[in-house]
Amino acid sequence: MLRTMTDQDARALLRKGSVGHLGCVFADEPYVVPINYYFDGRAIYSHSLPGRKMTALRQHPRACIQVDKVDDQLHWQSAIAFGSFEEVHDESERAEVMRQLLARFPMLTAVESQRTGAARAPESLVFRIQVDRVTGVAEV
Amino acid sequence: MLRTMTDQDARALLRKGSVGHLGCVFADEPYVVPINYYFDGRAIYSHSLPGRKMTALRQHPRACIQVDKVDDQLHWQSAIAFGSFEEVHDESERAEVMRQLLARFPMLTAVESQRTGAARAPESLVFRIQVDRVTGVAEV
Repeated sequence: MLRTMTDQDARALLRKGSVGHLGCVFADEPYVVPINYYFDGRAIYSHSLPGRKMTALRQHPRACIQVDKVDDQLHWQSAIAFGSFEEVHDESERAEVMRQLLARFPMLTAVESQRTGAARAPESLVFRIQVDRVTGVAEV
Repeated sequence: MLRTMTDQDARALLRKGSVGHLGCVFADEPYVVPINYYFDGRAIYSHSLPGRKMTALRQHPRACIQVDKVDDQLHWQSAIAFGSFEEVHDESERAEVMRQLLARFPMLTAVESQRTGAARAPESLVFRIQVDRVTGVAEV
C-alpha cells in the first residue's frame, strides 16, 4: 500500500542515506546524477569536480535530492528534498564538509587525493543545497 | 579513472537496466523519482498512476532517465537518456507496453492488478520518453 511519509520519516531517510540522486535543470532540461552526500537536517552537502551539474546549478539554483531504500519491489521508501544551491567558498567550511564526506566515504580519499588533492585543490567544488521542503512516499 | 562512455555502451547500459531515475521539471523545479522502465533502443517506456510526475511531464515534456550500475565506489557506470514525453493512448499499444513491463517486473502484477487492473484501468497511465540523446560516464 502506498502511503505518504511524514516529514519526520522522510528527513530520517535522508539523514540515513549517503548516496542520492541530484536533480537539476540545465538549459530547461532536467538532469540527474548520483551523488555522495550528507544531510545535517538543514542542508545537504556534497562536492563535485567542475562539469555539467555545477554549471547547471550555478545557472538554475533550484535542486532536489532523491534517496530511496528498497527492500524489495513491494517494500520501499523514497524521500526527496528540495532546496537551493549554494557554493561553499569559505576554506575552513570547505575543509569541514570534505572531512565529513571522507569520513562517510573512505574510498573517496584515494580518488580525490589523486584527482584533486581533496579540499585543498581549487578544482574540487564544495556545495550545499539549503533544504526548504521534504516529501516522501513509501510502499508498505 | 573517469571516462566518457561511448554512445553504444551508454545505450547498452540503458537496455540492460530496469530501474532508473526519471528527472522532470515541475513549476521550474527539478523532480526525481525512481521508475521501472524498458528501453527498446528508441524510446523508454514506463507507466504511472496519476500524480505529480505525470502532471509535470504533461506541462514540461522534456525528461531524462538516469540509470547506473555500481560495482563499488571506484567501479561504476552511469548513463542518461534525454528525450520528450508522450502519453500512449492507443489501447493495443498500452497493452503491449504493460505486457513488456510485467514480463520484467512480475511482482508488479499483483500490485497493479490490485490497484488498477493493469492496462485496462483508465487510472494506469502508460508513457514513453522518445530518446534523442544519450550520454554516459564510467569510473573504471
